[in-house]
Amino acid sequence: MAVNLIEKSPDQLHFIAGVQLFTAQAGIKKPQHDDVTLMLLSPESTVGAVFTQNKFCAAPVRVAKRHLFGGHGIRALVVNTGNANAGTGATGEQHALQMCEAAAKQAGCTAEQVLPFSTGVILEPLPIQKIVAALPSARPVDWGLAARAIMTTDTVAKSASAQGQVGNRHSVQVTGIAKGAGMICPNMATMLGFIATDAKIAQPVLQQMTEEIADETFNCITVDGDTSTNDSFVIIATGQSGQNEIDNIADPRYAQVYALVKQVALELAQAIVRDGEGASKFITIRVENAGSLHDAKKIAYAIAHSPLVKTAFSAGDPNLGRILAAVGYSGAAVDTDKLRLYLGDVLVAENGGRATGYREEDGQRVMKEAEISVRVDVQAGRHNATVYTCDFTKEYVAINADYRS
Amino acid sequence: MAVNLIEKSPDQLHFIAGVQLFTAQAGIKKPQHDDVTLMLLSPESTVGAVFTQNKFCAAPVRVAKRHLFGGHGIRALVVNTGNANAGTGATGEQHALQMCEAAAKQAGCTAEQVLPFSTGVILEPLPIQKIVAALPSARPVDWGLAARAIMTTDTVAKSASAQGQVGNRHSVQVTGIAKGAGMICPNMATMLGFIATDAKIAQPVLQQMTEEIADETFNCITVDGDTSTNDSFVIIATGQSGQNEIDNIADPRYAQVYALVKQVALELAQAIVRDGEGASKFITIRVENAGSLHDAKKIAYAIAHSPLVKTAFSAGDPNLGRILAAVGYSGAAVDTDKLRLYLGDVLVAENGGRATGYREEDGQRVMKEAEISVRVDVQAGRHNATVYTCDFTKEYVAINADYRS
Repeated sequence: MAVNLIEKSPDQLHFIAGVQLFTAQAGIKKPQHDDVTLMLLSPESTVGAVFTQNKFCAAPVRVAKRHLFGGHGIRALVVNTGNANAGTGATGEQHALQMCEAAAKQAGCTAEQVLPFSTGVILEPLPIQKIVAALPSARPVDWGLAARAIMTTDTVAKSASAQGQVGNRHSVQVTGIAKGAGMICPNMATMLGFIATDAKIAQPVLQQMTEEIADETFNCITVDGDTSTNDSFVIIATGQSGQNEIDNIADPRYAQVYALVKQVALELAQAIVRDGEGASKFITIRVENAGSLHDAKKIAYAIAHSPLVKTAFSAGDPNLGRILAAVGYSGAAVDTDKLRLYLGDVLVAENGGRATGYREEDGQRVMKEAEISVRVDVQAGRHNATVYTCDFTKEYVAINADYRS
Repeated sequence: MAVNLIEKSPDQLHFIAGVQLFTAQAGIKKPQHDDVTLMLLSPESTVGAVFTQNKFCAAPVRVAKRHLFGGHGIRALVVNTGNANAGTGATGEQHALQMCEAAAKQAGCTAEQVLPFSTGVILEPLPIQKIVAALPSARPVDWGLAARAIMTTDTVAKSASAQGQVGNRHSVQVTGIAKGAGMICPNMATMLGFIATDAKIAQPVLQQMTEEIADETFNCITVDGDTSTNDSFVIIATGQSGQNEIDNIADPRYAQVYALVKQVALELAQAIVRDGEGASKFITIRVENAGSLHDAKKIAYAIAHSPLVKTAFSAGDPNLGRILAAVGYSGAAVDTDKLRLYLGDVLVAENGGRATGYREEDGQRVMKEAEISVRVDVQAGRHNATVYTCDFTKEYVAINADYRS
């Protein structure tokens, strides 16, 4: 089902000095799959993170937030799949802490220096004993195998790397992995993303970078509009590249590292959409010249979330009426007579209706492609937004009617 | 596919003195179907109406608004199916006016005294000549046949009646018809509803009644979250029951008529959900004790619009995690430890997780029924909201991938 989604080979992923990766088999859901991942970080490392905004956030999210902002420094991350430890009350929080303690033993640090992450079934108790028992037998792995170990309903593992010159002399490496296929929406829905770089970045600066990159990448993707209880995006800066610390965003190297990390984050985020449950098409929705950023986003998400638009994409039908209707009910300020709508490079609607030169066969040509761009020129201001999504197929319903998430 | 939806027989629908109904075959989309409906109103009639809030509202909606608030009094309504006359620019507005002129000739009034309505395909020019040619051959019909003539993708005609004592002596009759099956959402999505009563109500009072009843009925239903370009809800008061005019809402008869009309409107609105495209289950979502009405509605719609929740209903899976996640991302103020979730009469979640006494088989029993109630007790205030929706099936995707709306 996945659209143009090819797993990276191990030699395409750069080693990041200062991160050691391990995986183990705890047998949480499926036998004979590595389902626990441990990341050990060198002592100089800093960590930035953003978490789901769902009020029913999972126990590991609550614990990770406390540990991240507790000021003890983060030395390890521990991740399990198969069970989300969400909707599990006070016991769930104890389990998340026990995961941290078990990881801390392997890392030689305190439990407060560990961030825990869980993904999988909601409302079931976490089989914490299995995780605690499995961690001591964890084996060293590369980024590719770690990407496999954090998968749930994903059909392929998601990873990406980038490298570039930062400052005058230093080459900086960036590698990331992510999981997520359904329930993907802005604000971190059922998605885990971990990116590491060997740059050296002060924690508050890295935290700001993490928040801004999340807004430009993972928060711009949507599969079905649902936002999950567990999702988290983390950037690790190990400081092993040999350069001085970047301690403010005015440092020109900040923008250089930002660009490299964003490139990796965008590739991971788009890979999640391409692997959207039942997806057969990858759709980029670009809204230009809106009166405000808020309006640009409203329009983009109204189109991206409309089941009628998404089913039309699945059928390859250039159903302009449904897209215009979504713009119309988005709540954004639009002058329907000024707005222009493009499918790919074809102008399809203007002056409040079908464009004069538009021919149905041109729209159909665009809609038949596996990658489709929808562009809305609002002509009301100077604000733009881009959202990535996929189509809505019968397979989506089949997967979600059968899977207990 | 429709759930428990049975068409009314003609003798279940009350005649409304002061309304004459006619239908004609214009051959707009399908041959040999009546697709144009004309309603002639007695001179004493008043009319209230609410319209779609979609900014791409159709030409007939723009014309109907002007005529309704133009102060000339409304003497006729004309409705066509098969073409929405939406996204048709200035020509579309001329066509809507031509529809009014043709209807005015039959009614013996001016074009400004006619309200036009269209539903069907968007972005195609209205075949106005066919409609103008067909109107003179329109034949008198009863409410049941009028309900059939306004259908598009509906699988059954929708109609309802009520009668009751109003004031000391008078019996008041109410009858309504509606169309709509997909794209149904708050704020009047692809829905036409016409209700007539023989009560006598001053226009400003009737307008207020129309807006309030719409909020309590048609604006509480949702099939897929999309809001359409054409939808309209109209109440006609012919004043033929022999009573004095109700000229303010403090008149005790106002509440009596309100209750009768609301009963008919709610039955019509629920019939639209039951006929939701591909629907196999009718779901009532009741949010109680929220901190504000806004919060109560946000929670109810977050649940009702979640594709993950809707596919779980389709599968009969009591997937509590998905419902709680929807509450969590609704944006409403909720204390997850206080909130209680019920499926039917079964308490399924409390204290931020699964309820202690909950057994999966109790949840499954409720989810297998054709009519399911979901109740969220927020325990944060005194505001309630109810939303009606249906499940999300593979048939929904099939219908919407094939139908060009």
